[in-house]
Amino acid sequence: MRQRNKPWADDFLKENEHLIIPNPKSYQGNWKELFNNDNPIHIEIGTGKGQFIAGMAKQNPDINFIGIELAKSIIVSAAQKVMDSEQQNILLINENAENILEIFEKDEVSTIYLNFSDPWPKNRHEKRRLTYHKFLNNYREILKQDGELIFKTDNRGLFEYSLVSFSTFGMLLNEVNVDLHAIEDPTNVMTEYEEKFSAKGQPIYRCKASFNERT
Amino acid sequence: MRQRNKPWADDFLKENEHLIIPNPKSYQGNWKELFNNDNPIHIEIGTGKGQFIAGMAKQNPDINFIGIELAKSIIVSAAQKVMDSEQQNILLINENAENILEIFEKDEVSTIYLNFSDPWPKNRHEKRRLTYHKFLNNYREILKQDGELIFKTDNRGLFEYSLVSFSTFGMLLNEVNVDLHAIEDPTNVMTEYEEKFSAKGQPIYRCKASFNERT
Repeated sequence: MRQRNKPWADDFLKENEHLIIPNPKSYQGNWKELFNNDNPIHIEIGTGKGQFIAGMAKQNPDINFIGIELAKSIIVSAAQKVMDSEQQNILLINENAENILEIFEKDEVSTIYLNFSDPWPKNRHEKRRLTYHKFLNNYREILKQDGELIFKTDNRGLFEYSLVSFSTFGMLLNEVNVDLHAIEDPTNVMTEYEEKFSAKGQPIYRCKASFNERT
Repeated sequence: MRQRNKPWADDFLKENEHLIIPNPKSYQGNWKELFNNDNPIHIEIGTGKGQFIAGMAKQNPDINFIGIELAKSIIVSAAQKVMDSEQQNILLINENAENILEIFEKDEVSTIYLNFSDPWPKNRHEKRRLTYHKFLNNYREILKQDGELIFKTDNRGLFEYSLVSFSTFGMLLNEVNVDLHAIEDPTNVMTEYEEKFSAKGQPIYRCKASFNERT
């Protein structure tokens, strides 16, 4: 996502520590205390400007959502959207997805969303794709036994790569859509990107997958 | 595929028993003798009018191809196409795909092609789809350990269903294409259907999958 320099972002983050949680690693295993309830926790890795997570939180008041976004200049937009939504079941984290093993404990998360992740199309950048085996290994660690990874993209190459990556990692494909908007799914909350690309007639791909068994 | 009544089809089949093999079950385990060589055997289930198998046989002279087609009125067209191609590495079988376990022996086949199989879109017809678990079980039986199932379709619902079916059966997805003609693949031989549908701009889906292990 294109990032504009926002010199006031640091101040904004400091003023909104109730929403954009500083030192997220210190809450590992204790996120439910911040939400003050025992509801399941769903996380979005790369939450962007927050339209998806705000929409999901509104649609699912009994689920706690945590959005992770590395770019400061973007997470401020997500924070603004969350505040506008007045939803109490969302928190944000300004962190690198590389670190999720230090942020969440084993079995702490029920669902992981990957939406329109960077495709890193060059072969030599395979290891940076969020559906590369190394990342899948991390997701397996923090997901509950019956948890699910839900992955959406408009990028054909990343989708094709990811299905093979899930399969060779031993994951189970529970649902595959190769043209998500061709069906009526009132539960599908669109990201900003998804709205833009699907309006152009571009197919949106989705896969729901889970981890068969733990090693 | 639409079938026209061809009253002369029976006579045609009798006159061309060198190509459309009668009593195929009697050759179980011995197909290589009919080809008179030890080349790997690839089969196409639902071979239609034969454009795919004739093209593949021409492109791969060191592979033996067997096309299976239930409809008499259609297999005569495939036979005509094979004769026109003058390829010696093709045989045809006028049989129901239900019976492949009686036609081939364990490990006799190296690759199975399913091209534009009937989608049977109604849920209650799931058991008729050629990627239903019962059929996958048969494919596993006749395929060599390192053999592959190569599946092409233009039908979104059948493709989505089949990927999940492969996965839940424990198969490994080796390659997935959600818009086959968006890439240059000079080895891709088009079926009659594929030509027609892709000319309309409809995406063609393909998956190459294999069986991880034998039970």
